[in-house]
Amino acid sequence: MWLELEGVGLHPTTGGYRRYAWTRTDHDLREWFAGEARTRGLDLTTDRMGNQWAWWGDPDAAVAAGDPGVVVGSHLDSVPDGGAFDGPLGVVSALAALDDLRASGVRPRRPVGVVSFADEEGSRFGVACAGSRVITGAMSPERARGLRDLDGVTMAEAITRAGGDPEHLGRDEETLARVGTFVELHVEQGRALDRLGRAVGVGSDIWPHGRWRIDVPGEANHAGTTALEDREDAMLGLAAAVISARRAAQEHECLATVGKVEVVPGGVNAVASCATAWLDARGPDAEAVRRVVDDVRDVVADFDALVTEESWTRATDFDPVLTRRLATLLGGAPVIATGAGHDAGILANAGIPTSMLFVRNPTGVSHSPDEWASADDCLAGVGALADVVADLAGAPAR
Amino acid sequence: MWLELEGVGLHPTTGGYRRYAWTRTDHDLREWFAGEARTRGLDLTTDRMGNQWAWWGDPDAAVAAGDPGVVVGSHLDSVPDGGAFDGPLGVVSALAALDDLRASGVRPRRPVGVVSFADEEGSRFGVACAGSRVITGAMSPERARGLRDLDGVTMAEAITRAGGDPEHLGRDEETLARVGTFVELHVEQGRALDRLGRAVGVGSDIWPHGRWRIDVPGEANHAGTTALEDREDAMLGLAAAVISARRAAQEHECLATVGKVEVVPGGVNAVASCATAWLDARGPDAEAVRRVVDDVRDVVADFDALVTEESWTRATDFDPVLTRRLATLLGGAPVIATGAGHDAGILANAGIPTSMLFVRNPTGVSHSPDEWASADDCLAGVGALADVVADLAGAPAR
Repeated sequence: MWLELEGVGLHPTTGGYRRYAWTRTDHDLREWFAGEARTRGLDLTTDRMGNQWAWWGDPDAAVAAGDPGVVVGSHLDSVPDGGAFDGPLGVVSALAALDDLRASGVRPRRPVGVVSFADEEGSRFGVACAGSRVITGAMSPERARGLRDLDGVTMAEAITRAGGDPEHLGRDEETLARVGTFVELHVEQGRALDRLGRAVGVGSDIWPHGRWRIDVPGEANHAGTTALEDREDAMLGLAAAVISARRAAQEHECLATVGKVEVVPGGVNAVASCATAWLDARGPDAEAVRRVVDDVRDVVADFDALVTEESWTRATDFDPVLTRRLATLLGGAPVIATGAGHDAGILANAGIPTSMLFVRNPTGVSHSPDEWASADDCLAGVGALADVVADLAGAPAR
Repeated sequence: MWLELEGVGLHPTTGGYRRYAWTRTDHDLREWFAGEARTRGLDLTTDRMGNQWAWWGDPDAAVAAGDPGVVVGSHLDSVPDGGAFDGPLGVVSALAALDDLRASGVRPRRPVGVVSFADEEGSRFGVACAGSRVITGAMSPERARGLRDLDGVTMAEAITRAGGDPEHLGRDEETLARVGTFVELHVEQGRALDRLGRAVGVGSDIWPHGRWRIDVPGEANHAGTTALEDREDAMLGLAAAVISARRAAQEHECLATVGKVEVVPGGVNAVASCATAWLDARGPDAEAVRRVVDDVRDVVADFDALVTEESWTRATDFDPVLTRRLATLLGGAPVIATGAGHDAGILANAGIPTSMLFVRNPTGVSHSPDEWASADDCLAGVGALADVVADLAGAPAR
């Protein structure tokens, strides 16, 4: 499976992946997932947002019996020039764990589902976890349909062009009812497991996090003829936003990042008439994150900039009973927090008993071709996931 | 003519022009110019770089007679979201001046040419005045062919796709020999004429100016999981470059601008692995401009950034005898300097007697849809240009 995915969306010069929602590459990944489901005789369903679910066993019979299924999986899309592991490791491990269980003759009492969520990274339309947000109702279908990519294409148009129907978007009760328990396996995005010398850990919680758009106004002008005192150069406000974000993050012990900017008109000899910076901020508690954003807002106010909240996700605690159960089952696996958002967090906030497994990433690097996990650790992850599914699907629902 | 050009390359939402070299829009502008030449019975030639020349009279007979022609004109391309006047005013005024002369029965002794230079703004490939630089040898054909636009398309590929042959690029002796005198009319890009209460001025010189690329290295990483102290965030170096450029320009009484940036990978939740800022710097003397760049270099050195000179144009004095002659002819028109580069500067540096006319721009704004000149002032510019051509073409070459 890893070899089949290796070339899909790989950029020839950067060595990174560019797997964006509802593109040709995304279509190829969906076809691949559908093929894997077909090969295994799993029942493939696509929900109202285009998330793909492959079921072993009858999820609706389980719902009728009051004991809905166990779902494992993650996503296949990537950040711009992302690595191979973030997302795909969870999908591939889920399928491999299912293969392991079947090879060992395990016959689960509850149905087992493998999910591949759509548009987790938000690389194209700017909102992370769009797939799980829409089906849980955390994002309205109106807002999702109206999101635009850099070329001005709306999500509704992108879905239509990809052969889908954006009118179907919305909270999907039927799909959610089938998910009795959700466990997402993911490559770790820091060095906690590496420091602890462990291949696999269990997730405890996700930090609160959000995204803000900072629009700095300016006046377009010629860089060679306009006196400095006559300028309204939007680029100066952008620079101030970048520097103040770092300073505020240090002061309030949070993380804050400007990773994306847009400058209009963008000519070498043109004073910027508009500059936009996107601020990503997160931290162990919501108050501290809010203080970071307030500090940045104070600084850019001198440039008449507008700070708009594009998304906010409160702190998410995974199901503590489930998390303890997994840690015990995996021989006292370490329990770690993460600053990154995941579909698991969206499902947890929707009231579904949810936890995560993390696989050691010795580089600690994430969202880059340098993210990595050894083959041995990946196999340890598959084994852990198989044990978890066997335990959860074999026993009565908690 | 103004109405015919009005819609070409006009962006529907920004209201600015996007007329970039060797695009479909550029093709339409070339067709328009060729049509204007045809309508007037002018002989159209295209030189080794694709600059268009429309001749009234035989330029080669004049060369043989040792008294080559008078050329007026400018360019039709634009900066991103530029205004209507920068470039086209010079081309349209040249054609209109020629119409005036013919209508008054003037029969010039020297041939008169109207030129439309290719790729003056450098919006697509980053080097301004590419058209005049290549035919004068100020830029080598190898360098020109290898320049790349944002999509990675080389200038050679762009020329080929537009139906040209990039193998022809190079210094064009035949074309240059035909230009005995060059006068470029241009909308003013500051408020000097407005302050003086005059519709038309004559150019004295162009400030020395250059472009530098500042490449800041970083390490791609996840914005939500990487500790601040573990980051190498290229965006911080970019912000420092922007702020230091403004500070240095103030200190050394120059102009310095960062108007274009690129950030890789450019995701909202990705720490930048690379950030590039382009610095435009100019001033009344070269030493001061060099001090600005040195100051910026010192600041970004802390971020391991590399500063590369992409272009440098030394101070250009227009022909002082010609400039005085034009000022006198135009009733003591004011003589003003400019911080903006022009094809006139490239031709002056190639040894061709050259000067410029400027038309009042009451907004002082340039490279923006807000640049403007009144109809009366534009007609005054046409009249002045007609007087200049009659004088220069009627009298023996200086």
